[in-house]
Amino acid sequence: MPVMMDGPQLLKFLEEAFPQAGHLRLAIEHLDEHSIRLRLPIDERHLRPGGTVSGPTLMWLADCGTYLLIMAQLGPVALAVTTNLNMNFLRRGEAGRDLIAQGRLLKLGARLAVTEFSILSDGSADPIAHATLTYSIPPRGGMG
Amino acid sequence: MPVMMDGPQLLKFLEEAFPQAGHLRLAIEHLDEHSIRLRLPIDERHLRPGGTVSGPTLMWLADCGTYLLIMAQLGPVALAVTTNLNMNFLRRGEAGRDLIAQGRLLKLGARLAVTEFSILSDGSADPIAHATLTYSIPPRGGMG
Amino acid sequence: MPVMMDGPQLLKFLEEAFPQAGHLRLAIEHLDEHSIRLRLPIDERHLRPGGTVSGPTLMWLADCGTYLLIMAQLGPVALAVTTNLNMNFLRRGEAGRDLIAQGRLLKLGARLAVTEFSILSDGSADPIAHATLTYSIPPRGGMG
Amino acid sequence: MPVMMDGPQLLKFLEEAFPQAGHLRLAIEHLDEHSIRLRLPIDERHLRPGGTVSGPTLMWLADCGTYLLIMAQLGPVALAVTTNLNMNFLRRGEAGRDLIAQGRLLKLGARLAVTEFSILSDGSADPIAHATLTYSIPPRGGMG
Repeated sequence: MPVMMDGPQLLKFLEEAFPQAGHLRLAIEHLDEHSIRLRLPIDERHLRPGGTVSGPTLMWLADCGTYLLIMAQLGPVALAVTTNLNMNFLRRGEAGRDLIAQGRLLKLGARLAVTEFSILSDGSADPIAHATLTYSIPPRGGMG
Repeated sequence: MPVMMDGPQLLKFLEEAFPQAGHLRLAIEHLDEHSIRLRLPIDERHLRPGGTVSGPTLMWLADCGTYLLIMAQLGPVALAVTTNLNMNFLRRGEAGRDLIAQGRLLKLGARLAVTEFSILSDGSADPIAHATLTYSIPPRGGMG
Repeated sequence: MPVMMDGPQLLKFLEEAFPQAGHLRLAIEHLDEHSIRLRLPIDERHLRPGGTVSGPTLMWLADCGTYLLIMAQLGPVALAVTTNLNMNFLRRGEAGRDLIAQGRLLKLGARLAVTEFSILSDGSADPIAHATLTYSIPPRGGMG
Repeated sequence: MPVMMDGPQLLKFLEEAFPQAGHLRLAIEHLDEHSIRLRLPIDERHLRPGGTVSGPTLMWLADCGTYLLIMAQLGPVALAVTTNLNMNFLRRGEAGRDLIAQGRLLKLGARLAVTEFSILSDGSADPIAHATLTYSIPPRGGMG
């Protein structure tokens, strides 16, 4: 089953839903109906004092990736909202290396979507953080 | 048992650990050894398109409150780090009303601290979000 | 607003949904539209080797309490199902003291209900465990 | 790096730590230093009325798998304890098919271990449940 929106379409849509994404140089390296791989170059905005990647950056990346996985299947469902985020912070993410977010759609039901994401520093096998997220999917009309 | 750091001491320390806090007009309305109540005035920086309070703002507030509850007991343990955050997003938080974060220390052990926070819009009884957080506490030296 | 089902009605209904509850001497000590307080006497079935309360007992109690809070508001919605459970295990629960579960309904929406529970040993102020749960509520027909 | 305990050693140790495991015909189908695959035949004890796999069975399997992953690396650390369990319940697990639990060690630090597990019915690609768990690892002695 092909995805309903491809990478360029998704990034264009994302800029409207998450305006901060537009100037972040976020890239979609892989996308199929079950998984996604994102790359985010790190700059000053993503770092805490001491030079480690900030928690909000990690959470934003997993949240954004979930939104993209849902859009890729359903098309532009602007009203999908995060209802749960669980994140384990595992190691310090270092400045100077891109973040890689590898995500997987665990369920896409009529009402809920659930994903899991591992976030790594490019070139390392050890995850910086791991997240599971739940989105509530709005009811779709007859024309959906 | 009195707290080791009071509200003004904590806010001063917080500005160093979370620099973005300094200009946010965050206030500590209550603090004892088991609980804390924070108030955060909402401005443009905390809103998403459409005027609802953003997820990162809610997560930052719970994370910051946990850090303050730990500092209040242990003094300035700069190396305490978040290891888990679980947040349920319950309702839209509206612009124009302060956020209130009511937090509770569930455990302060030798190695882990666990808190829970309810975040509300001022004047409402219905929480916008609820979070539980775990911090890892670094080993304390003999002079502790 | 009164609850739709009172304590005795709920316990009767619970025995059908959770058959193991019937012979557990579970008691509802308090119930209103936002909160519940349960008491569970501990016996051999609830203990691990070494005499501490088992994880499944704690999770069952929070799950059961959530179900009761939803039933108290909606009546017998047999198809409500747990979609997420997050539990922090804080201290050892001791044999010889009843478990007390103090729960709160954070949200009861058209599609999701979210609760939080603190579980304590009777007579202690320090929680053994804390949980948040999400239930998916089935669509209700016109005949309610 | 080889594991410190192999499958048969682990199952023997497990029977002491989780006595209910001994008669469950749990099998370790794969084990390396980062991952594990467990198989659990389903019988009456694991089902709820209606014939779906019970929540406690799913949680026990993820908890047990985490314990085994830690033991495989550290040897018999009897005092490791669960501090957090987060589980998303995704689909009904059916009677008549074995449960497969596929787990991964996200972190094994000096003080905390974090894992994630997908649980499926044998022969299906769609997970029934997904869990992340944290264990607290006791301090090891000077000879560790």
